[in-house]
Amino acid sequence: MATPATLLSHRDLDFQLHDWLRITALTERPRYREHSRETFDDALALSARVAADHFAPHNKRNDGEEPWFDGERVHTHEDVADALAVFAETGLLAAAMDEEHGGMGLPHVVSTACFAYFQAANVGTSAYPFLTLGNARLLCAHGSPEQVDTYVRPMLEGRWFGTMCLSEPQAGSSLADVATRAERRADGTYRLFGTKMWISGGDHELSENIVHLVLARTPGAPAGVKGLSLFVVPKYLVEADGTRGERNDVVPAGLNHKMGYRGTTNTLLNFGEGARHRPGGEAGAVGHLVGEEHRGLAYMFHMMNGARIGVGAGAMALGYTGYLKSLAYARERPQGRPLTAAGKDADAGQVPIVEHTDVRRMLLAQKSYVEGALGLLLYCAKLVDEERSAASHEERARAALLLDVLTPIAKSWPSQWCLEANDLAIQVHGGYGYTREYDVEQHYRDNRLNPIHEGTHGIQGLDLLGRKVVRGGGEGLRALGAVIGGTLERAEAAGDEAAGLAATLRGYWERAVATTARVWEPGDPQVALANASLYLEAVGHVVVAWIWLEQFLATLEAGPDDAFLRGKRQAARYFFRAELPRTGPQFDLLAARETVVLETDPEWL
Amino acid sequence: MATPATLLSHRDLDFQLHDWLRITALTERPRYREHSRETFDDALALSARVAADHFAPHNKRNDGEEPWFDGERVHTHEDVADALAVFAETGLLAAAMDEEHGGMGLPHVVSTACFAYFQAANVGTSAYPFLTLGNARLLCAHGSPEQVDTYVRPMLEGRWFGTMCLSEPQAGSSLADVATRAERRADGTYRLFGTKMWISGGDHELSENIVHLVLARTPGAPAGVKGLSLFVVPKYLVEADGTRGERNDVVPAGLNHKMGYRGTTNTLLNFGEGARHRPGGEAGAVGHLVGEEHRGLAYMFHMMNGARIGVGAGAMALGYTGYLKSLAYARERPQGRPLTAAGKDADAGQVPIVEHTDVRRMLLAQKSYVEGALGLLLYCAKLVDEERSAASHEERARAALLLDVLTPIAKSWPSQWCLEANDLAIQVHGGYGYTREYDVEQHYRDNRLNPIHEGTHGIQGLDLLGRKVVRGGGEGLRALGAVIGGTLERAEAAGDEAAGLAATLRGYWERAVATTARVWEPGDPQVALANASLYLEAVGHVVVAWIWLEQFLATLEAGPDDAFLRGKRQAARYFFRAELPRTGPQFDLLAARETVVLETDPEWL
Repeated sequence: MATPATLLSHRDLDFQLHDWLRITALTERPRYREHSRETFDDALALSARVAADHFAPHNKRNDGEEPWFDGERVHTHEDVADALAVFAETGLLAAAMDEEHGGMGLPHVVSTACFAYFQAANVGTSAYPFLTLGNARLLCAHGSPEQVDTYVRPMLEGRWFGTMCLSEPQAGSSLADVATRAERRADGTYRLFGTKMWISGGDHELSENIVHLVLARTPGAPAGVKGLSLFVVPKYLVEADGTRGERNDVVPAGLNHKMGYRGTTNTLLNFGEGARHRPGGEAGAVGHLVGEEHRGLAYMFHMMNGARIGVGAGAMALGYTGYLKSLAYARERPQGRPLTAAGKDADAGQVPIVEHTDVRRMLLAQKSYVEGALGLLLYCAKLVDEERSAASHEERARAALLLDVLTPIAKSWPSQWCLEANDLAIQVHGGYGYTREYDVEQHYRDNRLNPIHEGTHGIQGLDLLGRKVVRGGGEGLRALGAVIGGTLERAEAAGDEAAGLAATLRGYWERAVATTARVWEPGDPQVALANASLYLEAVGHVVVAWIWLEQFLATLEAGPDDAFLRGKRQAARYFFRAELPRTGPQFDLLAARETVVLETDPEWL
Repeated sequence: MATPATLLSHRDLDFQLHDWLRITALTERPRYREHSRETFDDALALSARVAADHFAPHNKRNDGEEPWFDGERVHTHEDVADALAVFAETGLLAAAMDEEHGGMGLPHVVSTACFAYFQAANVGTSAYPFLTLGNARLLCAHGSPEQVDTYVRPMLEGRWFGTMCLSEPQAGSSLADVATRAERRADGTYRLFGTKMWISGGDHELSENIVHLVLARTPGAPAGVKGLSLFVVPKYLVEADGTRGERNDVVPAGLNHKMGYRGTTNTLLNFGEGARHRPGGEAGAVGHLVGEEHRGLAYMFHMMNGARIGVGAGAMALGYTGYLKSLAYARERPQGRPLTAAGKDADAGQVPIVEHTDVRRMLLAQKSYVEGALGLLLYCAKLVDEERSAASHEERARAALLLDVLTPIAKSWPSQWCLEANDLAIQVHGGYGYTREYDVEQHYRDNRLNPIHEGTHGIQGLDLLGRKVVRGGGEGLRALGAVIGGTLERAEAAGDEAAGLAATLRGYWERAVATTARVWEPGDPQVALANASLYLEAVGHVVVAWIWLEQFLATLEAGPDDAFLRGKRQAARYFFRAELPRTGPQFDLLAARETVVLETDPEWL
């Protein structure tokens, strides 16, 4: 039976949100004046309960009974619809939106924590509302008031769902090759023709309507990404009074069957090329331009940063619940004898496997990954709130800059290391962890998507090293250096062990900055970016070490010392001693501008 | 359509077996005098063809249509039986056995390469004969002539299959807790009572009979592993004339449903406690003692080293085929534009993704893992042949010693890094790699078993650091140092780049030796073994670097230089520059006798 305590640690959330990030201070700002510690706690408690009671119970069923396509409609088992109905009743989706759009303006840092409960419980089912939220936010930011009124309201009510349609079979990472075309009609609407691939929630019967946001190219538009425009294309046309009208020419052509994440329908979608057209209407899927022509990718990227952080949060949530489950298993499962300084005591009874050092290593490593990732993501989520609500323009701009540079790390680091956490969770369970009787193998399979979607690991590396840390003369990296420097000063002032950790981190951060300059020194992007993925990994570990130092410092002021706070500090120590040094060889390789891969002729492989 | 070239590289096998290991020299020894380069090539070609034509085609079906249990019998789809019938006809199982047991005495290094084709094609189906082979070898080594005659002959003919029954629900890694009891009867037979868990091939209708080798405890036997005896327990009793008699009291109680490896039935088996007993017979499963009482674990361990190397070979084979498939995909899949020294050329057409440096990185890394693992395993397999056929007692003893120290590495290194290769193979495929339409996600799931079964990663670490490198005053480590030293001398004599690689490797090897001494210095096993898994990983990487230096040297004498040989050297360079330095922080941590994990109170997690 799932309980909130098998999903995320309430104590840890409390510690990170309040003892460390002190988010209640946000309620002093006009934007969040309606909120209080109590409304935050209520939202979290509600999320924990609904996630445990209505999402977790059918997580395995989502895996075993995939959505199926009868050639016309996509079907899902009934638990998905039931859970989503309960979710709609909670009002959490609206809660996360601004008041001007009918929301409750819950800070992003709180809604991120709330949603993490659902991701931990059931990524497959929770993808539907979270995709919808991303869609709604984009429309609110760039759509017309009429579009917001027509599409966003029913989405926030949980009646309609939303999707993002970017990829095509021939254009995955390379959006420059998007070929779906959009032709303008005299009435100002457009007709779309093309095929979109990997569309999560692309078709189903779970909602009255599906609002697709689609990247397409108008005739005569510039080549590449600069010629892309964004369109809202509903599955069913919308009548003037807002009710559902005729079926639009958007037709599912098949489902993708995946290793994990099986609860979310993932479709190939045909626009304006299906067998079925609007009765009596002309061919093509009816679409409405969002904002201006040729600015589609910019609008999408506005959403994309949020989506990328959401991917990181999903990865973290899966890692976190896997950690808690393997910890519970390790405390219960007897196996083997303890090894003492005097050797193995063969006459002793079996001990719980948490007593074995190697098992504790796998648990402590998981803890350092998942609590580090949670910290990174909550920090980033709070930057969204700072960007929206900080008092001065400078503070808001600084938050936006930091968020921009941290986004590829917030997406990729949890995707890599919380997946590793799931791998360790399986290993802690031994043979049982490899069976579908336990949860952790599914978490692993679900999590394996995260290094791929919303920009692969390699794409994030290019984004960080090729754009984020060099743009504006390196202002992003300097901004990050400034906040890390602030932490180092506080740690040095705290003295003792904190000062020692600060000295270590200072060395690694200086290494990161020097390496960034060094790889770009010759000005050859081919060489500079040859090891961009390694750069991403190395800088990611340094950033998470900083998050751990922040948490270490927060334990010193978090009230009476107890097992939880000692565990926090131990995980921080572990990260500094066993994890951070991994970056040494990576920085060496980057600093040497290693070209062994670049010089590899494809024929040699 | 599977071809041998999608499973393993024929050119690489040729290079490793002949240009490097020069295995034809074995045919000059009496034991292998009936063999020649031609018989070796024939066995490999036969394996490649049968694996591609009869095993690969139903690999996906094995995954999608698991064996099922109707409460009495275990069923498998018909492709499995068909493939195994073809396999039996090849005579490959007998070929791998000694002539005195009806075999052809194919060198172990050749049969390992042959079997790797089957493992690459379909681990699920190939597990049946390979488990049978392990069983047959154990009976030949420790069974009575009558037992060999009764059980081994039909196994080599492919009519009966064999299993190994060690684990129990409460005794996985901890065999000291095996509780199945075996009571001796007046006629010298035994009756077994107990439950065995994780029994691969434990029940099915694929063979006329199943020969279980079962660890059990006789009344009054010493506690722990020293009280275990080994029994042969057939599913059907065998009549005096060798024909199949009554059903024995061995009853499947359920199947384990796993993340991967789904084609191999994996059962919970009840001995002497099923509802069904032999009609008219007394209760209990009839068993026959193998060898002497209380020596069961020693006999099992004789088989276990072979089984562990077999696990490594399976991991390698899955990694290898995943590499070849992702390479083929990367050469065909167009996506994105090349990045040149002048920046990205947006006007160019799409290029195959192998042109992107980060994709080549993922391919070169895979190549370095899978070809390194193949080298390690072939080297170990050849040690088995040396142990059996070398001219002097000293040479045979040296081979045995080396094999002993290398076994935990040969088991765990491929299980870790060829799994990593499969992970990269998925990543090269992008979203497509995450779908079940392609092969690589299944390879990944299948391979994930390998760090668990036949002794987990953690167990292998304890075996290496706690036993293998310290036993006999460290003679195993010295023996390994001697062969590595020989390679270093040859590389130094070769000069140029080889000498440079040798200098690098010498440093790492000295580090490994010094670290071994240092962790044991205080003589506290709890501290020494606290980071045993890291020790295993670090030493494993150094050993594989040595294998790569061996292969690098072999390219210099392997005939006219071509793309294949250049690729070999490039992969060696990659391993030395990008992989070997990973061990630096691991050795640092070991040398510091880091106790951060050891000192972690379970309550802090």
